Amino acid sequence: MKKEQIIKKIQKLGEEIQAEVDKGQNPHIVMSAKGLGNVNFDEKNLLLTMGNKQMKRSFLNIAHARKFMQTVMIANLCKRLVEVDKHASIRELYYQLKHTIDKTRENTFEGQEESDPIIEDLERTLDILREQMNLTADRRGYLYGNIKITDAGDTINCAKLGRGGYGIPSTVEELGFEEVKADFALVIETAAMYERLVEEQFAKKNNAILVATQGQAARGVRRLIHRLNEEAKLPVIVFCDGDPYGYYIYSVIKMGSINLAYLSSDLGTPNCKFIGMTMTDIEKYSLEKVTERLKDLDVKRLKEELEYPWFKNRHWQTELKKMLKGGVRIEQQALANKSLEFVAKKYLPEKIEREEFLP
Amino acid sequence: MKKEQIIKKIQKLGEEIQAEVDKGQNPHIVMSAKGLGNVNFDEKNLLLTMGNKQMKRSFLNIAHARKFMQTVMIANLCKRLVEVDKHASIRELYYQLKHTIDKTRENTFEGQEESDPIIEDLERTLDILREQMNLTADRRGYLYGNIKITDAGDTINCAKLGRGGYGIPSTVEELGFEEVKADFALVIETAAMYERLVEEQFAKKNNAILVATQGQAARGVRRLIHRLNEEAKLPVIVFCDGDPYGYYIYSVIKMGSINLAYLSSDLGTPNCKFIGMTMTDIEKYSLEKVTERLKDLDVKRLKEELEYPWFKNRHWQTELKKMLKGGVRIEQQALANKSLEFVAKKYLPEKIEREEFLP
Repeated sequence: MKKEQIIKKIQKLGEEIQAEVDKGQNPHIVMSAKGLGNVNFDEKNLLLTMGNKQMKRSFLNIAHARKFMQTVMIANLCKRLVEVDKHASIRELYYQLKHTIDKTRENTFEGQEESDPIIEDLERTLDILREQMNLTADRRGYLYGNIKITDAGDTINCAKLGRGGYGIPSTVEELGFEEVKADFALVIETAAMYERLVEEQFAKKNNAILVATQGQAARGVRRLIHRLNEEAKLPVIVFCDGDPYGYYIYSVIKMGSINLAYLSSDLGTPNCKFIGMTMTDIEKYSLEKVTERLKDLDVKRLKEELEYPWFKNRHWQTELKKMLKGGVRIEQQALANKSLEFVAKKYLPEKIEREEFLP
Repeated sequence: MKKEQIIKKIQKLGEEIQAEVDKGQNPHIVMSAKGLGNVNFDEKNLLLTMGNKQMKRSFLNIAHARKFMQTVMIANLCKRLVEVDKHASIRELYYQLKHTIDKTRENTFEGQEESDPIIEDLERTLDILREQMNLTADRRGYLYGNIKITDAGDTINCAKLGRGGYGIPSTVEELGFEEVKADFALVIETAAMYERLVEEQFAKKNNAILVATQGQAARGVRRLIHRLNEEAKLPVIVFCDGDPYGYYIYSVIKMGSINLAYLSSDLGTPNCKFIGMTMTDIEKYSLEKVTERLKDLDVKRLKEELEYPWFKNRHWQTELKKMLKGGVRIEQQALANKSLEFVAKKYLPEKIEREEFLP
């Protein structure tokens, strides 16, 4: 979406409110309702999507007035940011807008926990990403491999950045792909495993691009994975720990999260595949000695995952039930028990060759 | 230290143990004692240093035997890593060495919480950094500015990496500085503030190198700051939140931590200066409205800091007492309340111009 379109969308929101005020009406803002009740699983496109339920926020409603004001303030700041091509972190946004309202003792915002959800409300109202409104959040994640990324006038060859690779910014909207020479992208949960694969020259030997998420993938990382798949046409393979949290990370990369269901079509990568770690790996590679017991929280999450519609296929049900029965989890770094090279020379290439993926 | 020297040091440890075994003696390992009781503050060099107390770990001592075995196992793995020029994460190390001892039900290691302290023991025994033994840990931190870093055959121009900058690896031993064109390094606590300064072109306009620590500085980041100061001769200015945690981050960058006192001379940067945020800033820039109340934990830490020998100077005592009295903290991002540009165009340049630093 172009800068002008974004400004126009925000401007239109303001004009509608203004028109209501001018007519002496109660100004209001309409947005998709949030929460589980308004989230659907689109089985065809394999994405979590928002339903049609809407909510209305009115100025002259004592339960809405504060949030109404906050929504308008944030919309206004975002419009200015886009106009002058500046970015602000969501924390800076909070500080920028925090003040005591004239002749009152009321603050506009009491904490960032008040402004963050309003930003999401605004995304749902306008159908624009936070990133497109030039808002940034904590960055996390690295990329390594044969791709040239353009950013702010620089061309960055991500295969020529030493062992470190490219630090993925929190907003990847403005990144361009100048040249992509790879057969697929491998998304990796831990930075340490990413560094292992860089050291073993996995990217070069397998013509792959490596992306480290460092735990749950940040929005910028999810958006970049989506773009690598959608624009650069790279198949995406995801490599996480063999535990309920790793499976959740995969699930969010693939089809989005319940909280941010309205973003799935921009952030999700429905055709990505899961390579491991699986419970089957434990037997196959004799890794029993380097598993760990599931904690109560793991078991709780595991039981939830057994009920997820997108895990309701034979393959995932087998894996999840095996985990529940065995009561153990396995980390990707546990493969080091075989040898440091094992993951790069045997585990991954063999599974990729045989297409041993979970859907 | 060269590869050969490191191997030699580890080898020597093994030979000494072997000699004792051959003579029918009880093999032992000697290392500096750890903990507060063996840490001194070197007022002349402004560094935390280890005292002369030593501890002995013997094989034929039921309280030592397990740790003795673990120390030897880790030393052995590290020697092999250095020999073949491979790195392992401290988690991989744990997994590599974990196994059940033949004909027993005893595991060599039960968790990484057992192997991590032994790595530190080995550092104190051999006087070699973990990084020099090719062990890596979670990475964190970014660098941006006019410096060319060489790594693994690549030359990385850290001013030409877009807005993202250079992701600092967990081990920076092998990085080279090919060309450094800057007047000073600015170390920044939050990644968001770092991104703000990149966007405002602070590095270019002030001929600075920017380093984001992302909270407490990782060892790799501390080592890089040390090297920028020591080898590239850059003055180092530290910019943290105005709270006890921010001051602690500064203190660790400057003179090391109590736990890792034996590393201070390699990781500390005693002549670095603190630019802010200070309690004085709050009054001077009218930031009262964007402060936050201290939590109980903040107050506890603040009282400890009042007693630190290196904060026992007039300047720090004034600041710390002001904080205690006012009962508030201030984040660096709170400067956004003035304007997004304020920090880059006014706050930092003015303070640097006037040399308004804390020691």
